Amino acid sequence: MTESNTADVDEEYADLGATTQEAMDIAETSMDIVRQFVPDETLADRFRQKAVHSMGDIEFQHLLRFTGTDSDGNADDAAPIRAGARAVNREATIVTDITMSKAGVTGRGHNCEKRKAIGNGAELAKETGMTRTAASVLELDKQGVYEDAIAVVGNAPTAAFALADCIENGTRPAVVVATPVGFVKAVESRERIREVAAEYDVPAITNVGRRGGSGLAAALTNELIHVASDVRDGDLDLESES
Amino acid sequence: MTESNTADVDEEYADLGATTQEAMDIAETSMDIVRQFVPDETLADRFRQKAVHSMGDIEFQHLLRFTGTDSDGNADDAAPIRAGARAVNREATIVTDITMSKAGVTGRGHNCEKRKAIGNGAELAKETGMTRTAASVLELDKQGVYEDAIAVVGNAPTAAFALADCIENGTRPAVVVATPVGFVKAVESRERIREVAAEYDVPAITNVGRRGGSGLAAALTNELIHVASDVRDGDLDLESES
Repeated sequence: MTESNTADVDEEYADLGATTQEAMDIAETSMDIVRQFVPDETLADRFRQKAVHSMGDIEFQHLLRFTGTDSDGNADDAAPIRAGARAVNREATIVTDITMSKAGVTGRGHNCEKRKAIGNGAELAKETGMTRTAASVLELDKQGVYEDAIAVVGNAPTAAFALADCIENGTRPAVVVATPVGFVKAVESRERIREVAAEYDVPAITNVGRRGGSGLAAALTNELIHVASDVRDGDLDLESES
Repeated sequence: MTESNTADVDEEYADLGATTQEAMDIAETSMDIVRQFVPDETLADRFRQKAVHSMGDIEFQHLLRFTGTDSDGNADDAAPIRAGARAVNREATIVTDITMSKAGVTGRGHNCEKRKAIGNGAELAKETGMTRTAASVLELDKQGVYEDAIAVVGNAPTAAFALADCIENGTRPAVVVATPVGFVKAVESRERIREVAAEYDVPAITNVGRRGGSGLAAALTNELIHVASDVRDGDLDLESES
């Protein structure tokens, strides 16, 4: 299963990136338009641009939140970005809540294992009646999967709540990207992530408001991968970036 | 490959639906909230509710468009819904543009084959420089895949343009669900789908504006599946619904 999964990743998920001339032209024109409306000064601005691009909404730049401190104890907006890019470059595992979020994370530009939580913890869900994504997160956490991982929640508020519980109980993901969408608990689940992120120094990128979703989570995670790649290429020095 | 793909569908993609008590409570509360703000009178209202739910934005109810006529020659808002539900119940193929859209379409409540365009047409993309998703659509169309299919475009404007060209050249999908997102050609690609949908009597569900994405496309497709399931259960009579 693991081998065929890896083949799957290389073959399919890489397909989201632009490789043909037309696709590269579109991507470039698109980001040029975004940069007319979103600042282009800081590392965090790159994520604001990516959020705007993936949501098709210029005002979304104001809805991102950057929380927690990086390994040097800095707590500026770029802290979770530095932490995330470093995690990508030490090949941390990227764990998403559901299949859709995982499908949106590129297979290019990194050697991180990609896996999803959903599909684990079926017995726990059956016993307790909790959502399968929440049970999945708790089950994977028991296996140590979230320790030092890039933890991505694109869809399920209950997965974000479960992840926050794991952090409270001692788990330390390298970075959390959490953007669940919806009318029930989505807003609160991201508030809870920010609370534990601040309290336990876990770097986190989240948004405020009801909107969000797997596409946004994937876009932000892909930008962490992009920053990591710029660092490897020598185009970016994380030590001097804020 | 086909067999393992099918197993994959049954096992993984079904996971998006609510089955545990907590998940069902959340889904119910969530739709109750949505129905406070979105009418609950017509079949089209169900899709407006689903769009609002998946986008986490009440105002999105005003951004959907229903185009084209169903097999009885009716052109009301519910026409593409009836056409789509009938297609689900005769087990038409569901073809999405990319992996992420496919991952969002439920595996429950239908026996339709789910497939994605991306991954086909690599040579055409290389030769012409067009995007891989556009080349994929043209290649699958050459194989007759889009004829009478449920054609879903969640992400790539160029895939929507390619699909519109196929329709202009004689292909007749059972229904089109097109919600590509972004700043370059997304708006125009959906306008073009609506134009060919109206001209060639192809039922289509689309949105206006820059927003959209795979999550929205999957939510609307899943609601077609839900309507189809209501019809099979005798809870809904399409002949009498508008």
